[in-house]
Amino acid sequence: MKKPAWVIDKERARRAAASETLWLFGLHAVRDALVNPARERLRLVVTRNAADKLAEAIAVSGMVPEIADPRRFSVPLDPGSVHQGAALEVRPLDWGSLEEVCEPGQGAPRAVLLDRVSDPHNVGAILRSAEVFGACAVIGTQRHAAPETGALAKTASGALERQPYLRVRNLADSMEALRAMGYVLIGLDGAAETTLDDVAREFRNLPLGLVMGAEGPGLRARTRELCDRMVRIDYAGEFGSLNVSNAAAIALYATRGSMG
Amino acid sequence: MKKPAWVIDKERARRAAASETLWLFGLHAVRDALVNPARERLRLVVTRNAADKLAEAIAVSGMVPEIADPRRFSVPLDPGSVHQGAALEVRPLDWGSLEEVCEPGQGAPRAVLLDRVSDPHNVGAILRSAEVFGACAVIGTQRHAAPETGALAKTASGALERQPYLRVRNLADSMEALRAMGYVLIGLDGAAETTLDDVAREFRNLPLGLVMGAEGPGLRARTRELCDRMVRIDYAGEFGSLNVSNAAAIALYATRGSMG
Repeated sequence: MKKPAWVIDKERARRAAASETLWLFGLHAVRDALVNPARERLRLVVTRNAADKLAEAIAVSGMVPEIADPRRFSVPLDPGSVHQGAALEVRPLDWGSLEEVCEPGQGAPRAVLLDRVSDPHNVGAILRSAEVFGACAVIGTQRHAAPETGALAKTASGALERQPYLRVRNLADSMEALRAMGYVLIGLDGAAETTLDDVAREFRNLPLGLVMGAEGPGLRARTRELCDRMVRIDYAGEFGSLNVSNAAAIALYATRGSMG
Repeated sequence: MKKPAWVIDKERARRAAASETLWLFGLHAVRDALVNPARERLRLVVTRNAADKLAEAIAVSGMVPEIADPRRFSVPLDPGSVHQGAALEVRPLDWGSLEEVCEPGQGAPRAVLLDRVSDPHNVGAILRSAEVFGACAVIGTQRHAAPETGALAKTASGALERQPYLRVRNLADSMEALRAMGYVLIGLDGAAETTLDDVAREFRNLPLGLVMGAEGPGLRARTRELCDRMVRIDYAGEFGSLNVSNAAAIALYATRGSMG
């Protein structure tokens, strides 16, 4: 017997909605999401023990937790996830448009652009650095950036709730939009002649977009074309390479505004 | 029936020897260790496919690989390790004494000291940054630093073979030894009043020890006492905190010598 059309539609809608949710896990990530008024929360699954530890945050959230047996914690997490008895199903945060988030007001904002940087640990650490240095946004692509996964949230250590993180369809379009808003786009590349420090001095008081490529392949040709300058991080050694989140932290530090 | 004494002794010796070896895995880490003349290598287990990819490095090493079936790759790795069909049993590298590695000659060396920083991904990334910025050593404690594991080697992306990494019995003793060699010891702490930048300017031409604590607890009381200065990384935001490897990268960048 064929399913009626309305059943098929409903199933499809449910699958689509489900694909737009994610599970955050770990006490820290769950607590931060519970107290974030902007976070849309769906299900909270906790052990009795975790419920006690999160009591205050749960009260703030107004959620009714589902208490789980520690030995049968059946939420869809990656194997090996250290969930600490706490998992929270949420929808991705809506940070608004690129223009809303990055429009320069009186200051000289910094944005970090990620060209196919996909490792969730790196993206999570970059969100932390972006928050610390007051960047207006971290911008990645929908296809090639890290999905806003639980592992990313855990590495971000709360920054996922507070640091605007935009996932755009096309990085080149965002670069052009930022440029139209007055941003200078600085691409990082170990082989560039200009150093980060020189460029930081030259453009200190302007809005800056710091463009990071994946380790190995680096920036794509189209991304490089759209950068105003390519720079390398000035350092002593001739060997080795920096982890991409470490390079991003240095770029944010070196170009920090006069507020620092 | 009781085992004879010589069997017990032999078993004990084998266990002790085994505990002093480690398995490196992944094509990159294995290749770097195969071509490192200072690395003592014991067993190489590779799939036929990995053997082809590593052919040049295997020839350099002079090792005879054990070819393994990709579906039964039975070496003692952490579950979830992405070994890419290549695993190499090695002994830890012997970098020599603190004095040999860190004695200032004409220059103003940098050393990174890790006070209970134990996450292998963080230590691996710190080794990479230390190599890039030409630090003489990364120094951790035997008990509380990351063991020189395969995961660390993989994150270090080759830097484990090239960047001196000393694991000392007592961090305080090493701090005093460095001070006796003329090092200024700079402890990082988000709550310090002095900024990293101020101290970098003041001591740029002196040997510097950059002392990093674990995220959360930070530096132990005894470690803080032995620092000449406590500094914070100057930044704009009031929220969030940096990942420890990102903080180390910034500290190395900010205090890079006049070579940069």
